[in-house]
Amino acid sequence: MAKQDRAIRTRHTILVAAASVFEERGYQAATITDILTTAGVTKGALYFHFQSKEDLAYGVMAAQGRHMGTVPPRTCKTQEVVDTVLLQTYRLQKDPMVRAGVRLAMDQQATELDRGTSFQEWSHGMTTLLTQAKQQGELLPHINPTDTADLLVGAYAGIQAMSQAITNYTDLDHRTTTLLTHTLPNIIHPPILTTLNLTPQRGKDTYTEIQNNLNNTNEPGTDGESINRNSNNISEPQTAN
Amino acid sequence: MAKQDRAIRTRHTILVAAASVFEERGYQAATITDILTTAGVTKGALYFHFQSKEDLAYGVMAAQGRHMGTVPPRTCKTQEVVDTVLLQTYRLQKDPMVRAGVRLAMDQQATELDRGTSFQEWSHGMTTLLTQAKQQGELLPHINPTDTADLLVGAYAGIQAMSQAITNYTDLDHRTTTLLTHTLPNIIHPPILTTLNLTPQRGKDTYTEIQNNLNNTNEPGTDGESINRNSNNISEPQTAN
Repeated sequence: MAKQDRAIRTRHTILVAAASVFEERGYQAATITDILTTAGVTKGALYFHFQSKEDLAYGVMAAQGRHMGTVPPRTCKTQEVVDTVLLQTYRLQKDPMVRAGVRLAMDQQATELDRGTSFQEWSHGMTTLLTQAKQQGELLPHINPTDTADLLVGAYAGIQAMSQAITNYTDLDHRTTTLLTHTLPNIIHPPILTTLNLTPQRGKDTYTEIQNNLNNTNEPGTDGESINRNSNNISEPQTAN
Repeated sequence: MAKQDRAIRTRHTILVAAASVFEERGYQAATITDILTTAGVTKGALYFHFQSKEDLAYGVMAAQGRHMGTVPPRTCKTQEVVDTVLLQTYRLQKDPMVRAGVRLAMDQQATELDRGTSFQEWSHGMTTLLTQAKQQGELLPHINPTDTADLLVGAYAGIQAMSQAITNYTDLDHRTTTLLTHTLPNIIHPPILTTLNLTPQRGKDTYTEIQNNLNNTNEPGTDGESINRNSNNISEPQTAN
């Protein structure tokens, strides 16, 4: 395996371990030692990729946020918005990294983290899609893409928290559909609205589509996780401690 | 002061102290000792009212949830829904007890708490109002009051969390308006919709109205906090430890 591939895989292993520890213990109680033990890597390898617990938390939140951008481009931009939401619902039910990222962003005890960044990255992605949708004439004239993006991101964050607290995500499909059917008719022109596919199956199909695209391009890492900002220096230490 | 009044005031003092400790430290890290120190009451007085840290957390969440039901009845039930939302926005900005209750409900590290109950109490209140609104013909025919109540409660929980994380609630008025304008046109008949007052000032006015009603009925406790389930036995210990 090339050195760069190995570094990417190690970084991914560390992030998966950090996600699991943050999800289980919360940001405040989690320690670097817990994460080292779970990841089974050396301290040197961890500090090659991440400088601190805070840095690890941002890594997990970024990995979760980045998933958003991975819906393949759609001709209809409001379908791309819908697919982004449905994909997140599918991933929250299936992927511990996504759950951990969302929980960190919602963890009001993680006072040293700038949790706003995670919300804002999501909103930025949604704003871009809704701005394109507006330019294509898909949106009702009164819609401000930034406000609508903020609403969708915030409201989604809340319904997933409520679903997690009450049913551990088993009713998240239904809550997601309710969110979409209560908001989209106020956002999208009716002729476009009637063409959209809002079924939860669409989340799973989009997930499969992304996995197939990743396999076809032979990217390393199971979620397309790319190497971090230290990536120019790809020789990570193997025995340091 | 009558014994019962004193007991109600002591219970309120303890809840305010618990709210402040939970808000500052999070559920997991908070201790009974912290709460005793902040409240300045004896251990005996605390255990007269609350059996455990868990019980204190439920007390804070219930005090927050109960605020919801205190909007005076409105002839137009959808205005009562709107007033409940706007009142919560006003209180989140002003009242530490409300903030603490909401944070406990959203605290995913508070694993021993049944946090779903707090969401469900809110949903139950909203469902009642929306069912009345439906009976009065205010809602569009396709609306299921339970689903719509769940959506409003969950979405609101999310926008307040996002507002807290990004601006510490300074933009919560704007986010609340955006939530209402994106959802209400899909819920309420247009002729009713046009009569509604959605301005943030309505939250403050409702708050003042409630305070005036409380002062007129001479209820003890600054937020109308009623005595707990032990209230039949109103002689709390003064010197126990």
